[in-house]
Amino acid sequence: MQIKGFTAAAVKAGIRYRDRLDLALIYSESPAVAAGVFTTNKVKAAPLLLDMDRLGKGKAQAILINSGNANACTGKEGMRMARETSAMVARQLGIEEDLVQVASTGVIGQPLNAQPFAEAIPRLVAALTADGFDDVARAMMTTDTVPKSSFRQIDIDGTEVSLLAVAKGSGMIMPDMATMLCFLVTDAQIVYPELQAAIRNSVEKSFNRITVDGDTSTNDMVLALANGAAGNRWIDEDNPEGREAFAVAVASLFKELALKIVADGEGATKLVTIRVVGARDDEGALNAAQTIANSSLVKTAFFGEDANWGRIIAALGRSDCLFDPERVAISFDDVPMVRDGVGLGDKAEEACTDVLKKDRFTVTVDLQDGSGTAEVYTCDFSLDYVKINADYRS
Amino acid sequence: MQIKGFTAAAVKAGIRYRDRLDLALIYSESPAVAAGVFTTNKVKAAPLLLDMDRLGKGKAQAILINSGNANACTGKEGMRMARETSAMVARQLGIEEDLVQVASTGVIGQPLNAQPFAEAIPRLVAALTADGFDDVARAMMTTDTVPKSSFRQIDIDGTEVSLLAVAKGSGMIMPDMATMLCFLVTDAQIVYPELQAAIRNSVEKSFNRITVDGDTSTNDMVLALANGAAGNRWIDEDNPEGREAFAVAVASLFKELALKIVADGEGATKLVTIRVVGARDDEGALNAAQTIANSSLVKTAFFGEDANWGRIIAALGRSDCLFDPERVAISFDDVPMVRDGVGLGDKAEEACTDVLKKDRFTVTVDLQDGSGTAEVYTCDFSLDYVKINADYRS
Repeated sequence: MQIKGFTAAAVKAGIRYRDRLDLALIYSESPAVAAGVFTTNKVKAAPLLLDMDRLGKGKAQAILINSGNANACTGKEGMRMARETSAMVARQLGIEEDLVQVASTGVIGQPLNAQPFAEAIPRLVAALTADGFDDVARAMMTTDTVPKSSFRQIDIDGTEVSLLAVAKGSGMIMPDMATMLCFLVTDAQIVYPELQAAIRNSVEKSFNRITVDGDTSTNDMVLALANGAAGNRWIDEDNPEGREAFAVAVASLFKELALKIVADGEGATKLVTIRVVGARDDEGALNAAQTIANSSLVKTAFFGEDANWGRIIAALGRSDCLFDPERVAISFDDVPMVRDGVGLGDKAEEACTDVLKKDRFTVTVDLQDGSGTAEVYTCDFSLDYVKINADYRS
Repeated sequence: MQIKGFTAAAVKAGIRYRDRLDLALIYSESPAVAAGVFTTNKVKAAPLLLDMDRLGKGKAQAILINSGNANACTGKEGMRMARETSAMVARQLGIEEDLVQVASTGVIGQPLNAQPFAEAIPRLVAALTADGFDDVARAMMTTDTVPKSSFRQIDIDGTEVSLLAVAKGSGMIMPDMATMLCFLVTDAQIVYPELQAAIRNSVEKSFNRITVDGDTSTNDMVLALANGAAGNRWIDEDNPEGREAFAVAVASLFKELALKIVADGEGATKLVTIRVVGARDDEGALNAAQTIANSSLVKTAFFGEDANWGRIIAALGRSDCLFDPERVAISFDDVPMVRDGVGLGDKAEEACTDVLKKDRFTVTVDLQDGSGTAEVYTCDFSLDYVKINADYRS
């Protein structure tokens, strides 16, 4: 997987642990159009504050990413470190400092030490290669068990355009270890408003529709760099087909990565789609789906492979979605379990239990009250989730 | 523990399991003033719909309680069963049918079978005794590990008035097994509006301030019967001291029971008070405290005895409470851990870790932004929580 005009690399810097890839760099040979989406958490880590400010220009040329330390809740010193590490990269690359974006993931509240960065950045820049993205995906991992990347090629008015994205999980979640990060690079020629719109809309239907435990992070971010090296006809408001093709590619790329993240959710053994249909509107459907997807009781029942629809109805009942309890239908994949708010009995439950034994399945909740729909992706809640999160740091 | 004019009993009816107390009755020799607070879940079990309707009269004389089956999501047949079982009790006691309240806890979505009730109710009525409340507390238990009851005596204008309440947990939670039920009986002479106000206000500061996993139930309810047998001066709007004394007693009784419930939360090993101070208003403080108290990441860190304040700040940041991240202070009991949004270092963390080793402690979050305060009570999130909820029913 290569993208014209981009190189990447990762090295072992020893930021928190010895002997693992923990510092990565993505570099565009020319300044690229850049857009970003950042955590809605009111507590934002230093790198995000710096990046959001710099993205005002709509341009970036490099992204420096570290794991092992989130540089969050680190005060003025944390901001100074974000600036200082970006300056090191800029000097080494010979580019303007405010064309460098920075991203961090790891423990909150630990001061970031400049020394490993100073030592590693020259090696990192020297290692830049067109084939470096797999290493970047590895260096970003924390509690992730697998690196996550996806690739697309599309045709824009007869020119081949490539998109590559790397991401880490393990959820929307995990202020501490598993900040959600995603970096997209493309050789598309695209104007800033279109790039920003494509990634914001795609994030809404992908990374914002997954949940591992309902917690958001101080460090979540999605960044996109488009360097125009493909030389395609500009994607702008006068190129509706190009916009559409690009938007569809980003949406599909992000959805693929989002599903990889939730399938690799901490301790997850199952990937479950919660699909709500027949709501009065999409907003209600989304609220209902998210409430079900975040219920600890629903998620432990998935882990126990128990078609416990009572917990699904109870979660639905505490959501903000309006509905008539006596019209609710629920099925597991295509097996009906509840009709008109009442269970269909032991036979139905046996058949649904077989569905729950699968690694992936869909729970469909039909409120029979309108045409609002939403899909949310979640995982089960396992003993390992508690082990991972109780043991971490100790 | 006895209350003048009240008797109670419990028997083994075999509703779901053999050989355990699962059917209970509370009886007042005369019709009592009655008030109730019911789940806000949009899905309400049949008994609650029947009770809410009957409580329109402000009078009740008996409460029939079963465990083993929630009679929720059971449709018209479920309503018929709630009526039929209440009629059995009324006939056996020789009272009006709509003076009987019914309460159920257990599995959702299973049809309730009349046979065990028909067989057991004559035995149940025959067993009524002034000393029966301990058995009632036992018969209500599901995943509770201990029965829960509390008692108060107060003086109303020179007359001794007694209050006794029994409750079950294990949380605000648990649509399936651990519906929150509480029944208060008192010999106070009190008018309906004062009884209703006392229990509603007390519920708000007790049962509505605890959380085990953020799920609400289809069957949660608090019922209060006041039969006036103490012969005290009427508690009404012309008796402000009496109102105050009664309200304080109910509040303290409910808070004691609420803390017993959360301490016995499913799998809980620690009872943690989340105290938010210095918010712009009480509403914001409550939202912040509840978001922290419900965070799976915060609760697993408590289980791991890890002073992981980053998770607390991250949960705070996704709450609806407005605050300045750079003014936040956090302490564990009286040990400061965070000042001005920044951690106080390894020494502070060691001292805080000692606090976390205790069975009970308080996390205080000071937003330094106003005078709004709130307290919420939670427990840790343990391996046993997942085991209990994944294994149940299987």
